[in-house]
Amino acid sequence: MIDLNADLGEGFGRWHLTDDEQLLSVVTSANVACGFHAGDPVTMRRVCELAAERGVRVGAQVSYRDLAGFGRRAMDVPSAELAAEVAYQIGALEVFARAAGTRVSYVKPHGALYNRIVRDREQAAAVIEGVLLADASLPVLGLPGSVVLELAAKAGLPAVTEAFADRAYTDEGTLVPRGRDGAVVTDPEAIVERSLSLARSGSVDALSGARIEVRARSLCLHGDTPGAVDLARRVRERLLESGVRVEAFA
Amino acid sequence: MIDLNADLGEGFGRWHLTDDEQLLSVVTSANVACGFHAGDPVTMRRVCELAAERGVRVGAQVSYRDLAGFGRRAMDVPSAELAAEVAYQIGALEVFARAAGTRVSYVKPHGALYNRIVRDREQAAAVIEGVLLADASLPVLGLPGSVVLELAAKAGLPAVTEAFADRAYTDEGTLVPRGRDGAVVTDPEAIVERSLSLARSGSVDALSGARIEVRARSLCLHGDTPGAVDLARRVRERLLESGVRVEAFA
Amino acid sequence: MIDLNADLGEGFGRWHLTDDEQLLSVVTSANVACGFHAGDPVTMRRVCELAAERGVRVGAQVSYRDLAGFGRRAMDVPSAELAAEVAYQIGALEVFARAAGTRVSYVKPHGALYNRIVRDREQAAAVIEGVLLADASLPVLGLPGSVVLELAAKAGLPAVTEAFADRAYTDEGTLVPRGRDGAVVTDPEAIVERSLSLARSGSVDALSGARIEVRARSLCLHGDTPGAVDLARRVRERLLESGVRVEAFA
Amino acid sequence: MIDLNADLGEGFGRWHLTDDEQLLSVVTSANVACGFHAGDPVTMRRVCELAAERGVRVGAQVSYRDLAGFGRRAMDVPSAELAAEVAYQIGALEVFARAAGTRVSYVKPHGALYNRIVRDREQAAAVIEGVLLADASLPVLGLPGSVVLELAAKAGLPAVTEAFADRAYTDEGTLVPRGRDGAVVTDPEAIVERSLSLARSGSVDALSGARIEVRARSLCLHGDTPGAVDLARRVRERLLESGVRVEAFA
Repeated sequence: MIDLNADLGEGFGRWHLTDDEQLLSVVTSANVACGFHAGDPVTMRRVCELAAERGVRVGAQVSYRDLAGFGRRAMDVPSAELAAEVAYQIGALEVFARAAGTRVSYVKPHGALYNRIVRDREQAAAVIEGVLLADASLPVLGLPGSVVLELAAKAGLPAVTEAFADRAYTDEGTLVPRGRDGAVVTDPEAIVERSLSLARSGSVDALSGARIEVRARSLCLHGDTPGAVDLARRVRERLLESGVRVEAFA
Repeated sequence: MIDLNADLGEGFGRWHLTDDEQLLSVVTSANVACGFHAGDPVTMRRVCELAAERGVRVGAQVSYRDLAGFGRRAMDVPSAELAAEVAYQIGALEVFARAAGTRVSYVKPHGALYNRIVRDREQAAAVIEGVLLADASLPVLGLPGSVVLELAAKAGLPAVTEAFADRAYTDEGTLVPRGRDGAVVTDPEAIVERSLSLARSGSVDALSGARIEVRARSLCLHGDTPGAVDLARRVRERLLESGVRVEAFA
Repeated sequence: MIDLNADLGEGFGRWHLTDDEQLLSVVTSANVACGFHAGDPVTMRRVCELAAERGVRVGAQVSYRDLAGFGRRAMDVPSAELAAEVAYQIGALEVFARAAGTRVSYVKPHGALYNRIVRDREQAAAVIEGVLLADASLPVLGLPGSVVLELAAKAGLPAVTEAFADRAYTDEGTLVPRGRDGAVVTDPEAIVERSLSLARSGSVDALSGARIEVRARSLCLHGDTPGAVDLARRVRERLLESGVRVEAFA
Repeated sequence: MIDLNADLGEGFGRWHLTDDEQLLSVVTSANVACGFHAGDPVTMRRVCELAAERGVRVGAQVSYRDLAGFGRRAMDVPSAELAAEVAYQIGALEVFARAAGTRVSYVKPHGALYNRIVRDREQAAAVIEGVLLADASLPVLGLPGSVVLELAAKAGLPAVTEAFADRAYTDEGTLVPRGRDGAVVTDPEAIVERSLSLARSGSVDALSGARIEVRARSLCLHGDTPGAVDLARRVRERLLESGVRVEAFA
């Protein structure tokens, strides 16, 4: 059993990025941008409506406040600010989720914030504080072994692990940093096979060739290009054909 | 019986404007800025906490998206955008209100939006749609006779009238536009007396000298200068001494 | 002799809109977004460099401060603010133009501001004041008969008229408002023919079928879709084949 | 001979912070906020006009793009973005400086950026690239021994050192980080004496009590409180009485 998640609603006003319509027919969990790195209120509303119609779970994709940098620039945000900013974003999305007849059902930090709280205990704690402010029952999505999942669990929030079929792993099970040779897997067939392997056996080939364990409840798919949507669809189909249940985490 | 409301939390990051601490000991309803004309998440959180402690009601002071103009510049925002922006702001504030043990209990549009929807039916309808998206039971605060209150009532939302003791009225009961001679009442004693008159008899002297009826459930006090806070306190004291009950609207 | 202008650099950070590379091989004047409705500094720099390489003239496409609305929402901006905002944008672009070995050579207001100052004398005067603050010799691009061109001429700034081959005209020579039937011409061949007619005879068929005079020194081409770039190229080629000189205005 | 500099124009729209009017009668160099951490175009224009009238030199106080954090949060901005953002800000300010009959005469990075480029070679290089894009003759103001001044000098830009009379120094001549005991000097008389010592002897007492050398061409005064303006005035008077020439750097 595996969940498929993708980033949605990542346009802003006149600008569009993600093919929300198509992706919502593939994924089981929609990480909806909440206005800080992307995501205007009209788009947030529409994505929530579409997600609710199709039974896709809505999650808050919270970010640093950084439209100009798309939330990809690490920032030294003081804890009190970061906590309140996270809560603000969740609350804003919750309005549209409820109006569409659903709820914000989890939180997935975005971009530089996501990467930072793999190890930064202070910012991870601030994110957890923000989630707790908004709703003390929300699952948090993150990397296996990350500090943010450790702190989520300590705070009583469900910690949901995710894996990336299009990213190379080190022997220790961490992601090979972007920019290094081989960090990103681009061959579609390889991505499909890795997805299947991650879902069925909880393992994948590391960059070194060694077989490593990566136990994840959710797979992150990317969908900001037309090709990526087709690929996401292929991943889903192969999983289903192979008898994997594709289902949102509880 | 009268409600006293004031705009609070109208700083942004490093910048401060309203004396939130002091005003919360005077008013019964706090119009909290929600981030579009002013109001950062840290301030929103703190104001909600203080308001909850003191039993002051929290309202969402929704605005055009315009930090540079403090929401004072009328904008031709398409209805779908305006509705979603209003809902977004209410949702963001609701997180902090709930975390503080209270709720967003009403909506008061700010600045140019407030003035525009006195007459602009399209934008007024969009604001009401935004309120309904967020919570179909929220009272809306506005001018007696305004289109927005008419539409609020039609939509089943409580329409709450307010008056301004420091603004001159025409014989028709509308505000004399800022910029005209005598539009703003500056004499503190006059403001106190007008407050009392509005609260007790539902009437006030118009600019012409004629006595006119202005029935309002709430009085708006201003608090962005130290003198204004003292004045707000005097208004409250005079009302209480005169036997007027100062209480949030139901 | 005709100038061809198009809006360029209208992305922001992660978001892209205009095909700057392709359009710069078609147009003679590039209206570069300056950061208020679109246009990040990296893009502004790159567009200026490409334009300079290809001998395309750089113009400042100034706008209301409105990233969320892409500058398409009319705003009641006080004159002093609007003038300073226009100057600010021109100055910011000038840095990149100079660094690329060229200069900001004209100003073209964008979107809702462009439309507003066809008739709004106060905002038109503010735009002219802003241009004068930046450089008292800059041509201003606008609609024939517009207030902004009238005020530009009075202020000693060259007033450059432009026409739109893909927009319908009234018998009075004004644009048929978007939203009305037939307001936008979509047939590529018709657009090419209208371009030729505007350039050669200074006239075009109005929506009514009547032949009207539209004397313009520049034609505005649109380029925010792949099809539009091809169409722009066809317009240019047809003009050249027909013996029209395609040249930036002096 | 010493220069006195201060941060000016650090409001934004409705919000005010620095007492620009008063400070401009004290300092010889005005670090004008350029819109990224503070500073709206109307304020930038007015400060430039006042500075020009009084013969105060105008400098560009460039920052990370961070209104919400007032530029005080370190950000991992890629070099190309940071360089272009710095140039953008200088260009925007240059319009108002020229319109007022003066020029942008130096650059002083603000807040978290200022601190970061004391040691961060990559960001320091990006800042220098941005300055060079704008004007290859602009002096850069920074801490003695900072990487940014080293790179400025290498690039042929005048490197101007500054000292802080209200900050404690380590024995190595670096600033004691804020947050540590004694990091900030608050006694007005001590600040005046330290200013005199820095200006006359190029030395000051470190936190340890040891006398250390701090050779600076400029002293930074703070002016965001009424008391600070008075103190700035006292510093200036004491310097003048003691025969120190207070003059902008060449």
